[in-house]
Amino acid sequence: MKSEGLQYTTLLRNELHAVRDTMLEVRHQLPDPVAPALAAIINGGGKRLRPALALLSAYMFGADMGHAIPVAAAIETLHTATLIHDDLIDNAMMRRGTQTLNANWSPAATVLTGDVTFAWAAKLATRSHNIRLVQRFSETLATICNGELSQMFTDKGRLPTEAAYYDRIFAKTASLFALATEAGAILALQAEADIARLNLFGKLLGEAFQIVDDVLDFMGDEATLGKPVGSDLRQGIVTLPVLHYSQQHPDDVRIQAVLDLPRDEAATQALVADLRRSDAAEWAMQQATTRADEARALLAVYPHTPYRAAMEEIAAFAVRRQY
Amino acid sequence: MKSEGLQYTTLLRNELHAVRDTMLEVRHQLPDPVAPALAAIINGGGKRLRPALALLSAYMFGADMGHAIPVAAAIETLHTATLIHDDLIDNAMMRRGTQTLNANWSPAATVLTGDVTFAWAAKLATRSHNIRLVQRFSETLATICNGELSQMFTDKGRLPTEAAYYDRIFAKTASLFALATEAGAILALQAEADIARLNLFGKLLGEAFQIVDDVLDFMGDEATLGKPVGSDLRQGIVTLPVLHYSQQHPDDVRIQAVLDLPRDEAATQALVADLRRSDAAEWAMQQATTRADEARALLAVYPHTPYRAAMEEIAAFAVRRQY
Repeated sequence: MKSEGLQYTTLLRNELHAVRDTMLEVRHQLPDPVAPALAAIINGGGKRLRPALALLSAYMFGADMGHAIPVAAAIETLHTATLIHDDLIDNAMMRRGTQTLNANWSPAATVLTGDVTFAWAAKLATRSHNIRLVQRFSETLATICNGELSQMFTDKGRLPTEAAYYDRIFAKTASLFALATEAGAILALQAEADIARLNLFGKLLGEAFQIVDDVLDFMGDEATLGKPVGSDLRQGIVTLPVLHYSQQHPDDVRIQAVLDLPRDEAATQALVADLRRSDAAEWAMQQATTRADEARALLAVYPHTPYRAAMEEIAAFAVRRQY
Repeated sequence: MKSEGLQYTTLLRNELHAVRDTMLEVRHQLPDPVAPALAAIINGGGKRLRPALALLSAYMFGADMGHAIPVAAAIETLHTATLIHDDLIDNAMMRRGTQTLNANWSPAATVLTGDVTFAWAAKLATRSHNIRLVQRFSETLATICNGELSQMFTDKGRLPTEAAYYDRIFAKTASLFALATEAGAILALQAEADIARLNLFGKLLGEAFQIVDDVLDFMGDEATLGKPVGSDLRQGIVTLPVLHYSQQHPDDVRIQAVLDLPRDEAATQALVADLRRSDAAEWAMQQATTRADEARALLAVYPHTPYRAAMEEIAAFAVRRQY
């Protein structure tokens, strides 16, 4: 099932166009050739799940759309900025079927373009005139960067605890989902309980989303993924399915052997094949499903509206998707 | 004359300690070894002119120090973040007598540490509870990055107009000085005329400061500068003294020859020697002095206080310093 079929894409058609146009305003402030390059990335798009969640949350609580649209744009812009720096860091040449900035530009120009994109995200966030929201923005950016730094300096090549795995995927993915889903409640000046509930909804949804990503990384089809099966493991990153497999097979020394440098490609391929045959994917998908179900249950206290239904559908989609 | 002898260093002793302690709070949020590395950079210090200007402006207008101190810390943190990325971009190994982050770390870790420092600056800025100030923060970061991108993509290796030179030094230096000096007026909810006046004070001061930097780059003593004389020219950057010299000597083809790649070291040395013998430095210093005088004159409408006097002294210091 494609995201094109989901309710939010029709329900928020105009608003998501407004989000994109708001993001694109940055062009007028940038020198050539940065303006067209960043515009191409923005137009490249993706599923726009994060801004959609912010907009749905805003509609659920009756927030001012004049504030919600720039905030949704700010969240997607922040996501874009982190991807620009991530692709540089990972030396990735392609994203969403097009060449990355760092594929064509110097590291210097790529770093600065990411920086100016962070600045634009912050500027858009201030259009909400809501200081708490801007504060949550800066905290979320810190969480994302600190997660990557922790992974770089301390976690790589080691078998993490399950708690450390969840910390990592919170930093990487769930923290920004949580910001998106709580944003509407913050903008609408809802009670703390509502803000906390929507934050938790986004956190659980983001965790489910990332677990599925981690399962697809070694269970998915190489053509659909656009990268080799097991690429996380090849980068020394241990995800939930691998963690489960290692708990089921405490005597399998190959796991640490695969993580140690230099990489043993034959051992990695053999381990990935065994992982695919094991129940690791099924077990991890169950963890994702539990989270998505918990997330949906949190919304049961709110009136039945198309916005609530669309959020629930996104939670279901998170664990059903094949890409 | 050293900055240690300036009034602000005694007048703001406690406040500048509070600024440093506020900046250092970031340690508790960072993984090892990022925390001690960033703390060392923060403790490394420098003249703390930008936070001092923000504090003096806040005192001049009676702003709440509970807001002014985090804002001063935010401004210095923003400056620190831009330096971390600049040193990476310029491949600089030393700053303020100590090794840069990129001298010891991977580009990836350096990029992310700069990013997390931007996030910390934004978080500190929100402690002001003043959305306009946060907005000016994000605009200033965009100005700084766009200035560097313009230089990278369009300006390098060419003789700029005088207007383009001033645009560049506004982006590089004067924009952050202007943010610092207007910050106190914004926090104290002063009239627009006061905010504009303090913004202009900082802009003129920052321009004066950068012109002097540009003069020292080829007139200064190599030992004091800690870099070779004429290093701007060697990087293809044309500063105000060179611009004046080229206007005085329109037939001297060496200027463009020196800017063209590959660099001709002998021609560069000969040109630098001629520049040092010309009136270019004196003329440029006169431009800096005019700006510093204009800046000081702007403050004449305000009551005589130690804070106003300290700001005026900084403007005088900007054109008197030898380092």
